[in-house]
Amino acid sequence: MKVGIVGGGAVGLLIAAYLHRMYDITLYTRRQSQAALLNKNGLCFIKGSKEKTFFIKTKHIEQSEMNEDVVFVTVKQYDLPELASSANRLQNIPTVVFLQNGMGHLPLLSRFNNRNIVLGVVEHGALKHDDRTVEHTGEGKISLAVWKGEIGEAQRLIEQSSSHFPFLFKKDWYEMLAMKLAINAVVNPLTALLRVKNGQLLEVNEYRMMMQLLFSELKDVLSLPNEQKAWENIVLVCEKTANNRSSMLKDIEQGRQTEIDAILGYIIQRGKSMNIQTPLCEFLLHAIKGMERRGKFE
Amino acid sequence: MKVGIVGGGAVGLLIAAYLHRMYDITLYTRRQSQAALLNKNGLCFIKGSKEKTFFIKTKHIEQSEMNEDVVFVTVKQYDLPELASSANRLQNIPTVVFLQNGMGHLPLLSRFNNRNIVLGVVEHGALKHDDRTVEHTGEGKISLAVWKGEIGEAQRLIEQSSSHFPFLFKKDWYEMLAMKLAINAVVNPLTALLRVKNGQLLEVNEYRMMMQLLFSELKDVLSLPNEQKAWENIVLVCEKTANNRSSMLKDIEQGRQTEIDAILGYIIQRGKSMNIQTPLCEFLLHAIKGMERRGKFE
Repeated sequence: MKVGIVGGGAVGLLIAAYLHRMYDITLYTRRQSQAALLNKNGLCFIKGSKEKTFFIKTKHIEQSEMNEDVVFVTVKQYDLPELASSANRLQNIPTVVFLQNGMGHLPLLSRFNNRNIVLGVVEHGALKHDDRTVEHTGEGKISLAVWKGEIGEAQRLIEQSSSHFPFLFKKDWYEMLAMKLAINAVVNPLTALLRVKNGQLLEVNEYRMMMQLLFSELKDVLSLPNEQKAWENIVLVCEKTANNRSSMLKDIEQGRQTEIDAILGYIIQRGKSMNIQTPLCEFLLHAIKGMERRGKFE
Repeated sequence: MKVGIVGGGAVGLLIAAYLHRMYDITLYTRRQSQAALLNKNGLCFIKGSKEKTFFIKTKHIEQSEMNEDVVFVTVKQYDLPELASSANRLQNIPTVVFLQNGMGHLPLLSRFNNRNIVLGVVEHGALKHDDRTVEHTGEGKISLAVWKGEIGEAQRLIEQSSSHFPFLFKKDWYEMLAMKLAINAVVNPLTALLRVKNGQLLEVNEYRMMMQLLFSELKDVLSLPNEQKAWENIVLVCEKTANNRSSMLKDIEQGRQTEIDAILGYIIQRGKSMNIQTPLCEFLLHAIKGMERRGKFE
């Protein structure tokens, strides 16, 4: 089976590292320089104290025809419009798996006419050291659920997945994304704002109260099917990743754009359409966007 | 006229420095060591590039009888209960002027039986370098308004005040305190949370939007007599003190207790009694208290 991966970020490199033995993998990068580097020096994969180098076929996306059976799209939500508009190189792919955070990408999916559109949620810890190096910092899973059509060629990924890198099938894409969004909406903005590691949200009692206030604001907006389970999930993630800096905290620290629009921006919009007030989400959205903007000055 | 000053913080030292030529001043400190230092080496007053040393009669409050005509109480709100309970050394003073921030101290005033109780709002920039050194970093004013009785002996302070250190009489103590509280409630928590100077709240557009969201939440709770003027005041203060770090930001940076209870805590309580929701104030109160608590660990 031919598997394509669009995007050479932490998630794209991680999937390439785990799947390259079983499938015919092609990695598509946005920058020619990254494709050249990976083809020349290989992909360096780190886990614990071990380090391995694999050679993965890598192409610059703008100069390539795609003809895979299944393609993972791992670019950030804010890069999706470009992908949809630029001659839609994905048009001949039967099954496309979108792995973006939040729900901000859902309105964009109508621009893709593929037979099967699958949504996925990544729960691995992955850290990109440089353009050819990725570290697997926490074993988790990738959940998949059908958005349009059927699971298609992605079924083989689930059946043949290994315990170190499992793919799971979920029946309800909304529940899957909403549970993950609730986690991202609570953990990411608060850790970035307070500049703390995930575990400190639980350790400092007042920060935990901030989590609860934020959660009780967004649980109604997200119509979470099981509020209690969603809250326990958030606490569990903070416990399991206590020593991690969240992706949003890292983005702020490194002056990069965050995914705040896909996360809190989506919740605020949904709240408006449901006539539910979201004062904390709005306040936090401004805070993170202001911190992003200041980062550019410093 | 005999003038007493309780508290050897920035405001207490500043008042002593400006009034010692015209009045018979006694400064009362909580720590014996500060009284000894000031009596031995004098009070060092800095303004711009000039530095002067004055000798001010200084006493340890616990070992002193007070017999002044008017006494300024400059201790923080959270130190007032101790002052009220410890044998009330202020009981023979005809006119007492309370200079605390916020409104958290108002319920405590009933414990003082003095003939005249005057409230004051300090709008000077003052920085305490050490126990005997204060810098006047920004010329402003001290507004005074009657809470109980009449203006009494404080009238002379207003009549004889200089343009570098003016005292002004205000008719309405509530309006005076509410306007100042609105400024403190917006500028202090946001600068401390975002760790920015006052001016950056205006410079970063998203931070200005956070100010507006917070202001529109608390303006109804404070029943501000003139909302437009109050907002303009807040903006003006940020402009005039653009390069200053707010007192709450400094408290957080130096691991000290902040005045958040006297400021947002008061607004939250008042909101509850008026049945007005204050989600942003509650969220910010937890954030600042969490940052206080973390400061102790670091």
